Amino acid sequence: MTPSPSRASPPRIGSLPSGPRDAITDVGAVTVGHETLDEGPVQTGVTVIRPHAGDPYRDRVPAAATVLNGFGKSIGLVQVEELGALETPIALTNTYSVSAISAAQIRDCITANRESGRSLPTVNPLVFECNDGQINDIQAMAIGESHYRAALGRASAEVAEGSVGAGRGMVCFGFKGGIGTASRRVDVPGAGILTVGALVLSNYGRRAQMRIDGAPLAALIDAREAESEKQPEKGSIILVIATDAPLDARQLRRLSLRAGAGLARTGSVFGHGSGDIALAFSTAYTLPQDPAQPMPSLAMLHDGRLDPLFLAVADAAEQAILHSLWRATALPGRDGRMRHAITDTLPDRAGL
Amino acid sequence: MTPSPSRASPPRIGSLPSGPRDAITDVGAVTVGHETLDEGPVQTGVTVIRPHAGDPYRDRVPAAATVLNGFGKSIGLVQVEELGALETPIALTNTYSVSAISAAQIRDCITANRESGRSLPTVNPLVFECNDGQINDIQAMAIGESHYRAALGRASAEVAEGSVGAGRGMVCFGFKGGIGTASRRVDVPGAGILTVGALVLSNYGRRAQMRIDGAPLAALIDAREAESEKQPEKGSIILVIATDAPLDARQLRRLSLRAGAGLARTGSVFGHGSGDIALAFSTAYTLPQDPAQPMPSLAMLHDGRLDPLFLAVADAAEQAILHSLWRATALPGRDGRMRHAITDTLPDRAGL
Amino acid sequence: MTPSPSRASPPRIGSLPSGPRDAITDVGAVTVGHETLDEGPVQTGVTVIRPHAGDPYRDRVPAAATVLNGFGKSIGLVQVEELGALETPIALTNTYSVSAISAAQIRDCITANRESGRSLPTVNPLVFECNDGQINDIQAMAIGESHYRAALGRASAEVAEGSVGAGRGMVCFGFKGGIGTASRRVDVPGAGILTVGALVLSNYGRRAQMRIDGAPLAALIDAREAESEKQPEKGSIILVIATDAPLDARQLRRLSLRAGAGLARTGSVFGHGSGDIALAFSTAYTLPQDPAQPMPSLAMLHDGRLDPLFLAVADAAEQAILHSLWRATALPGRDGRMRHAITDTLPDRAGL
Amino acid sequence: MTPSPSRASPPRIGSLPSGPRDAITDVGAVTVGHETLDEGPVQTGVTVIRPHAGDPYRDRVPAAATVLNGFGKSIGLVQVEELGALETPIALTNTYSVSAISAAQIRDCITANRESGRSLPTVNPLVFECNDGQINDIQAMAIGESHYRAALGRASAEVAEGSVGAGRGMVCFGFKGGIGTASRRVDVPGAGILTVGALVLSNYGRRAQMRIDGAPLAALIDAREAESEKQPEKGSIILVIATDAPLDARQLRRLSLRAGAGLARTGSVFGHGSGDIALAFSTAYTLPQDPAQPMPSLAMLHDGRLDPLFLAVADAAEQAILHSLWRATALPGRDGRMRHAITDTLPDRAGL
Repeated sequence: MTPSPSRASPPRIGSLPSGPRDAITDVGAVTVGHETLDEGPVQTGVTVIRPHAGDPYRDRVPAAATVLNGFGKSIGLVQVEELGALETPIALTNTYSVSAISAAQIRDCITANRESGRSLPTVNPLVFECNDGQINDIQAMAIGESHYRAALGRASAEVAEGSVGAGRGMVCFGFKGGIGTASRRVDVPGAGILTVGALVLSNYGRRAQMRIDGAPLAALIDAREAESEKQPEKGSIILVIATDAPLDARQLRRLSLRAGAGLARTGSVFGHGSGDIALAFSTAYTLPQDPAQPMPSLAMLHDGRLDPLFLAVADAAEQAILHSLWRATALPGRDGRMRHAITDTLPDRAGL
Repeated sequence: MTPSPSRASPPRIGSLPSGPRDAITDVGAVTVGHETLDEGPVQTGVTVIRPHAGDPYRDRVPAAATVLNGFGKSIGLVQVEELGALETPIALTNTYSVSAISAAQIRDCITANRESGRSLPTVNPLVFECNDGQINDIQAMAIGESHYRAALGRASAEVAEGSVGAGRGMVCFGFKGGIGTASRRVDVPGAGILTVGALVLSNYGRRAQMRIDGAPLAALIDAREAESEKQPEKGSIILVIATDAPLDARQLRRLSLRAGAGLARTGSVFGHGSGDIALAFSTAYTLPQDPAQPMPSLAMLHDGRLDPLFLAVADAAEQAILHSLWRATALPGRDGRMRHAITDTLPDRAGL
Repeated sequence: MTPSPSRASPPRIGSLPSGPRDAITDVGAVTVGHETLDEGPVQTGVTVIRPHAGDPYRDRVPAAATVLNGFGKSIGLVQVEELGALETPIALTNTYSVSAISAAQIRDCITANRESGRSLPTVNPLVFECNDGQINDIQAMAIGESHYRAALGRASAEVAEGSVGAGRGMVCFGFKGGIGTASRRVDVPGAGILTVGALVLSNYGRRAQMRIDGAPLAALIDAREAESEKQPEKGSIILVIATDAPLDARQLRRLSLRAGAGLARTGSVFGHGSGDIALAFSTAYTLPQDPAQPMPSLAMLHDGRLDPLFLAVADAAEQAILHSLWRATALPGRDGRMRHAITDTLPDRAGL
Repeated sequence: MTPSPSRASPPRIGSLPSGPRDAITDVGAVTVGHETLDEGPVQTGVTVIRPHAGDPYRDRVPAAATVLNGFGKSIGLVQVEELGALETPIALTNTYSVSAISAAQIRDCITANRESGRSLPTVNPLVFECNDGQINDIQAMAIGESHYRAALGRASAEVAEGSVGAGRGMVCFGFKGGIGTASRRVDVPGAGILTVGALVLSNYGRRAQMRIDGAPLAALIDAREAESEKQPEKGSIILVIATDAPLDARQLRRLSLRAGAGLARTGSVFGHGSGDIALAFSTAYTLPQDPAQPMPSLAMLHDGRLDPLFLAVADAAEQAILHSLWRATALPGRDGRMRHAITDTLPDRAGL
């Protein structure tokens, strides 16, 4: 499922350099794993982002989110907003599998921390979702706890993209969407080179409004093709941002909003039925679960130094969306109509 | 499990009259059902509030929430905040059973609405929780989808209180807590008699800070008793407010916050580890799921008329908390120590 | 100061039709007035948007806002968020003149409503600002109450754009910015033709990131020109959205956020030092100040019908920004360097 | 205006010890100054809280706020929420004088920082208000910039209370209200003794709902007296919380909410027409305006250690409200009816 090296690439967004993998795993020790279900009508999966190699319940990760459009059924955001930290791997899946994945996160935490929910606090599961019902039989609720664990077990710095993991059944601008990732680097005075990574689960957008690095898709393809999409948007996009910049939760919320700028540039207006949520976390430090352990005492970045990071977030998010499209492989919809890869539609315009 | 008529009653809060049942079911056609698990170490349950007799997915209910302290693992609030409506029964359970109950809500919606998640939007489950781990073996994750359906099937206008349903294993101010309900009525100029109902799942509080209708508990009981509680607060409280007043989501959010005033009067300071969440909904009208159906066109109440409702919310919430304590029956904790009913501790001060 | 008809026009954004004026005054009875100060180092002004011809204190206007980036010194948003209504004309000015304008709004309300602040509630002034210090001697605090009243007195359906009113000293992407307006119309099933208008005060942006209808400016002009801008962004943008769609405050908040999508498409990442605020109001009904007066009882639009309006907001906002640039006239900065009109820089590419 | 030592004292709230002054000035180097206008119908004033002895524009102070009820006309909260810091002294005044005070704050910042609004960012004024129109001729808008400077010049660690400064014309529960302050100390494991101070401007409440340390006032005074109040609540309360605990903005927001718990205990339900706003700031560190200066690198307190501070905030806020009542002196209302001091009404129940 790794894109072949000969595969066409999307335009490059902006002028900031990427990290070595152009992936969210360029940030700290972040790893990503997928479990893909490809069983007849069941075309779905789970994607897991591990913020570090340890147990995030014990060593919590500073985080914050922006709900661009709250037509979404995630779990975990209430506590992330209050405490400014996440304490499980970040899981992505289809809308009707949040229950199963959150149960898996709870059970795993209990296994690793026998006092969770007893003398220690209950764990806060964190699961995001998009509706892959165009392709997947979402009503089958086929994903179980074992699929989460399989994705987790496979987490590595190499990130497969496209129709994999939670991205298996996703559709974006009427093309096959799914998982995409990218990274950008900025040189911040006094702080040196900092990295921002984005990973998206793309499942949104109306083709008539699509922009590729600013250029309207409608100008590139057959007009009838652009018109073919009649249904209201029922998609969603989840944008996960990682950075090694030392930022607190308030600052991370600021970063997460800028993922929305990258999203908007692709033509999204955060449609009514689209659950558009961005989460940002930092790998620069952790926060102990146990109040008796010492708190980190590093200096945060001055807010006046955030602009390069804001740009990096927007660019990485936009780039990750393009990657999710360019690395996807076509799949038939439940309606029998094929959801083509954008590279099939624009074969001779690869890279535009 | 219905309190016997001879049972002691708590003080009456405020001077507003109650509805005939002094219960949330005095509002519109609201009904409540419980399923209680009492199987050795498993002491937990589910409580369900049905906002009306129909299918809330088809006829959505205007609603809004206030997160007083977001140390909580509910599901569904993101969409309630965005759309100002709920579309399932409101479910209460223990922290580690949100997954199972939300799965049941999804499956029930699919059964009743075959196009949910396909041509119709995915359904937004709505489950709140408190940690009953002092009494219940929460790690057993004993609650399944059938328990939700059993609670739903039993929903009626008669509301059992105390150690029932989701309240089975809850502890409040070191006493046995759980489910409590109350209602208040106000005469609003131009709108007539309006009713506010509250139902709480009480599982919070430090005994040394407890106030009963303003009076410090510490002045009423043995000082050592008040001192006996050493652990940090790890509880929570869910406060559900219903009203037949015609209010939009913005106004319902204003109402929900006032449940926090009633909570504060009992001595809560919304402790760090306490997930304190209030949700308010109106039974005055519904919002169709289908955009092709007509929207309601009734006049909302003027904000300048809300003060009596604000007072009713605070009083009903405080009263419901007292009811949850006074109607609870003692249960042993997992630590072997009994969680007494407050009526056992204050036997000759019934009604204070 | 009216742009001459022969003046170059910017690209047209999107495919939705505009109202007859392509201005915010295409919505209901909205009018706009400017007062421009052009006195040596004092290059600033006031712009006023009247939501209707009456007294908005008596007939309040449903409204809501999104703070995209809160580096801003507006007054009035706290109450708008709580009550979902505005009750004065919307005023725009420079950062250090919010005080004077809000005093004028209060005094005018007192004059018209002798019981304001006595038996009637105090009035909530509503003033937004951008920092025009690159051109204007902002420290002079030259704007007084009379300037607000002059702008108000001149309010009409004809909207001058560019370097007028509050836009006098504003700079956008290093070009001369200021006031711009636009409108879009959509056909909403069951509701007919609805209009969205936008008026912006543009004072933000780094030239290297500018996009004109998606096309990077850097590709159009001399590279050195794009590089010339060294300072961190200290600008801001205010985006005011009007619509005749019947929407409540929750829905208007949703609309206001979509102005941010239009803003992002121009290259903004909502810079740290940029106060980026969007306000949306509806002209479909008013809310009486007096609780004894009847409340409106019209049906709101179904949220499932909002997507065309979301697109209209984004397109109108982006278009209004381009208008603010294309209709601006050059002015020298306080540093002696000219802030050119974009039409001077792109003379032969008018319309691109 | 200092209360005479023989003056009756209110009940003491809770069991936590106070600092030496039982005032907000027990925290760090916080000082408070008043300017009182007592000129016939003009009965109003300004109160200023200086968070430290330096220039808060240069050395910004971590801060956050909770809007309990946003019927208020403050200025400055938008930026405080975004940046988590305040950069002027905190000013309190009447509703219609926010303009004048904010102008003074801007002008003072310009005087001290010639590049403010030019090469340096514009300053964010921070002014809170209550409506003192029952006693003061608020329409006179009598307060000018000089009054702010007079209050600032008088700032000291000794805090006069009652009918002074911004509290001059305020009315609380139908009694004379105004300025009150208090402090509480807690011993936090690993952090030692920490102090919380509160200063309130009290101007809210319906007598029938008043609670004094939990006891209903109605039980203490003549019933007709409690009934005498017919008007809807048009008051407000501002609660300013200071602490020397090392907390970031997210944590300070959590603290600020707990001032609402103290407020609720006194009988408030955050009435519709009452602007109830709480702001919390920390004196443990400052944040430089200049990004080139080093950021602080101290460890914040673990959230699991906040409970004692939450209790201290609620207790100090409730105590400060009682102080504002007990230290107030009677003044006649504009309606000719006297607003009595509570100590006149409860003369022989001093201390209850």
